[in-house]
Amino acid sequence: MHIDSASREQLQEWEKELSAQYQRICEHELSLDITRGKPSADQLHLADKLDGILNGDYRAADGTDTRNYGGLDGLACARDLGADILQVPSEEVIAGGNSSLTLMYHAVLTGYLFGFAGNTPWRELENPKFLCPVPGYDRHFSICEQLGIGMVNVPMTDSGPDMDAAEELVRNDRDIIGIWCVPKFSNPTGVTYSEDTVDRLAQLGQIANPGFRIFWDNAYAIHDLEQQVNLPSIRSATLANDTADSVIQFASTSKVTFAGSGVAFVSSSPANLASLKQQMQAMTIGPDKVNQLRHSRFFAEFTMLKEHMQKHAEILKPKFACVLEQLEKSFGESDLGEWEKPRGGYFVSFNTRPGCATEVIKLAADAGVKLTPAGATFPYGKDPEDRNIRIAPSFPPLEEVDTAMSVFVLCVKLASVRKQLQMA
Amino acid sequence: MHIDSASREQLQEWEKELSAQYQRICEHELSLDITRGKPSADQLHLADKLDGILNGDYRAADGTDTRNYGGLDGLACARDLGADILQVPSEEVIAGGNSSLTLMYHAVLTGYLFGFAGNTPWRELENPKFLCPVPGYDRHFSICEQLGIGMVNVPMTDSGPDMDAAEELVRNDRDIIGIWCVPKFSNPTGVTYSEDTVDRLAQLGQIANPGFRIFWDNAYAIHDLEQQVNLPSIRSATLANDTADSVIQFASTSKVTFAGSGVAFVSSSPANLASLKQQMQAMTIGPDKVNQLRHSRFFAEFTMLKEHMQKHAEILKPKFACVLEQLEKSFGESDLGEWEKPRGGYFVSFNTRPGCATEVIKLAADAGVKLTPAGATFPYGKDPEDRNIRIAPSFPPLEEVDTAMSVFVLCVKLASVRKQLQMA
Repeated sequence: MHIDSASREQLQEWEKELSAQYQRICEHELSLDITRGKPSADQLHLADKLDGILNGDYRAADGTDTRNYGGLDGLACARDLGADILQVPSEEVIAGGNSSLTLMYHAVLTGYLFGFAGNTPWRELENPKFLCPVPGYDRHFSICEQLGIGMVNVPMTDSGPDMDAAEELVRNDRDIIGIWCVPKFSNPTGVTYSEDTVDRLAQLGQIANPGFRIFWDNAYAIHDLEQQVNLPSIRSATLANDTADSVIQFASTSKVTFAGSGVAFVSSSPANLASLKQQMQAMTIGPDKVNQLRHSRFFAEFTMLKEHMQKHAEILKPKFACVLEQLEKSFGESDLGEWEKPRGGYFVSFNTRPGCATEVIKLAADAGVKLTPAGATFPYGKDPEDRNIRIAPSFPPLEEVDTAMSVFVLCVKLASVRKQLQMA
Repeated sequence: MHIDSASREQLQEWEKELSAQYQRICEHELSLDITRGKPSADQLHLADKLDGILNGDYRAADGTDTRNYGGLDGLACARDLGADILQVPSEEVIAGGNSSLTLMYHAVLTGYLFGFAGNTPWRELENPKFLCPVPGYDRHFSICEQLGIGMVNVPMTDSGPDMDAAEELVRNDRDIIGIWCVPKFSNPTGVTYSEDTVDRLAQLGQIANPGFRIFWDNAYAIHDLEQQVNLPSIRSATLANDTADSVIQFASTSKVTFAGSGVAFVSSSPANLASLKQQMQAMTIGPDKVNQLRHSRFFAEFTMLKEHMQKHAEILKPKFACVLEQLEKSFGESDLGEWEKPRGGYFVSFNTRPGCATEVIKLAADAGVKLTPAGATFPYGKDPEDRNIRIAPSFPPLEEVDTAMSVFVLCVKLASVRKQLQMA
C-alpha cells in the first residue's frame, strides 16, 4: 500500500474495503489493552519465591536487623545489587523503596527546592527547564509539569537524542537544568544510546549551568531480549570529562521481580548523594530493608539475576516478534508508518503518517483495543506531528497481542487512507 | 532531696557524694542507648510470620494481582486495616508505603507547593508557619525546617496543646497554616488529648486561614499499655463543626509489625485526598501492595491486631514500669524534676530543673548512656528552658533500661546540685 502514489479512486476503494473490515471487527466487541509496560502474570510468577525466602531469618549478612528502623542508604547487600545492575561502585548507590520513579521525583525535587551540591535551587531561576528527548516517557514529563519546570523537545535518533540540538540548546540557555534519558531500550523507541552520544552527554556538564543534571533512567539495564546490548558507561564518560556531578542514574527491579514491590536504586557522585540524603532525611527513617533482604537472597549472585532475566526474555520474545511481524507484513512495503526493532525493553514505537495518530487510537478504542493516548510520549501530551503511538505488548497473552495488532494495523490503514482523502 | 531549700553546705556535700558515685559509674565503661522509639527484637519477632504468609497466593480478595503496578489508593483490604486503626471509613483512607513520616512529608509538600482543596499554596504566603506543641516530635519539626516553614511553640498541658494559646495565635496570624499533633500518647509526654481539646482543635478551622491543616499523627492509636485509652474522634468533631477539610490523619504499622517494613496510612476528607493524590500521581505508580496484602492476611480481623498489640504491651510494660519506678524512687519526694506517667506509646518525658537538661545529657553520655540530644523535642533543637529529656525505654533489654536509668537519675541529681551551686 502506497498512499502517496495512489489515485483518488484507489484511495476510495481502499477506504470502502477497510471500512467494511473495520465494521466486522467492531462487531466482535473486543476488550484488549496494550497501553502500559506492565509485566504479565507469567513474568511475575518467576519471582513468586520472594515471599517466604527469608525463612524467619531477618538479619542481613552485616548483622543488620532488617525489621527495625534505620539506614537511609539502604541495606549494604541491596546496594551491591543496585551496583551490579548499574555497573557502578556500591558506595555510590542508595537502595530505596519500591519505585525508581519516586527516587526520580525526589531527585528533581532536591534540585528544584534545594539545589544539588551547593548549586542554585532551580526554582530560583527565571524559567528552569529540562530537555526532553521525544518521543519519551510520559511519567518523566509529569514530574516536570507538576513542579512547573519547562520542557523543551529534542528529537530522538536511532543512536539517542539529537546531540547537535541538545548542545546548541544547553549552550544558549542557562535555564536548562536537566535532561531525561532512558539510555538503553529507550521508552518508547527501544533505541540504545551510542558511545558517541554517551560521550557527548557526558560533556554537556562542561557547557551547561553548573546545576545541570542528566537523569539517567536505566529502567531496562538488564532487559535484553536476545544477546546482550552494551550501553557505554555514563559514569566512566563523566569521570573522564570531569563532570561526574552532572549525572544521576536510576534503576529498579520493578520489571525483574514484582512491578509494584521491587527495590529501586539511585546512583551518583558523592556530592549529589549527599544532597539527595539531605532531602531524604526529613522524609523517611529508611527504606523497607526486609524487602531489600528478600531481593538480595533471591539474587545471591549476579549470574542468578541474569538467568532470571533470560526467563523474562523467553516470555517476552514471542510477543515482540508478533508485533514486529504484523508491522512488517502490513507496512514493510508501504508508506504508512515507521518503527524501530527493539532488542529489549518494553515497547515498540510506531510513527504513523503525519496527523494520523489520534485517529488511529480513536478507531482502535472504538473497536475495543486500548492504546496509549495520542501525545502521551510528548511533554504536555502534545505530539506536534500527531504521529507517535507506543505499543506495549508485554502484559496481554500472545493471542491477545496478535488480535490487538490486527486491529491496530487495520486502524492505521483506515486512518491513513481517510486522512489522504481529506487532504486531496 | 530538695534543692531549693538546701543550704550551700548541704549542696556541697551532695555534690561531693554524687561526683564520687558518678566517677565509679564512669569506670564501668557502659554503652547503653535510650534515644529512639524503636521496638525491641522481641517485639519485632511477634510478626516474623509476615514473610511467607502469602504462601504463593498474591491475589487480594478483590482479585487484584498485588505483584503488578497500579492502585494509587493502596489495596482495598489494606485501606480497611487503616480504617480500623484510625476509626474512619475505608473510602477516606489511602494505604501507602512503609512510613507515615513519608506520607506526612508529602502532605506538607502538597500544602506548600500546590495548596489543599483549591487553597493558596503555603509558599505564596509571606511567612507560613506551623504551631508546634512542645515538647514534640523532632521529625515533624525537621519537615517544616527543611521546607522553610516557620514554627511557633505552643505549650503542651496534660490534656493536649494549650488551646487558649493556639486559638489566640491562629486568630491573629493568617500565616499559621498548620499544627502538629500526636493526639494519643503524645511524643514525648505520653498525654492523650481530652474531649475538650479535640473539640477546640476541630473549631480552629473556623477561625484559621482556609488553607490551615491539622496534622494528626496518630502514631500510637492502638499502643495502649494497660486498658484502652479513648481518644475522641477528630473526624466526628470536625464533621460536627463543618471543618472536615481541616484535618489530615496518619497512622502506620511501624510499631505494630516491622518498624521499617510496615504499612502507613493517611486519612482525610475527599477534597484533601484528591489534593494528595494529585501530588502522588506524579511521584509513584502505587505502593507496595504485596506487603499490604501480607499485613491484611496477618491481621485478617481487627481483633487479631488488638491481641497482637497486647503482646507488645506485655513486653513494654516492665520497661516503662522500671523507668517510672526509678523516677518515683529518686524524685518522688524532690524538686529535681517532673514527668507524666504515660499509659501507652513509646516515651517518658522528663523535665529537669531549668537549665539542666544539656548537662544531664552530657554527663550521661560521658558515663556511656546515650540520651536524645537536648532540645530535640523542640523546633530548631532549642528548648528555651533547657529542661526536657525524652526517655525511650523500648529498645534495650530490661536490665539495660534499669542500668541506664540508674545513671540517668544520678546525672539529674549531680547536674541539678551543680547548677544550684553555680547560681548561689
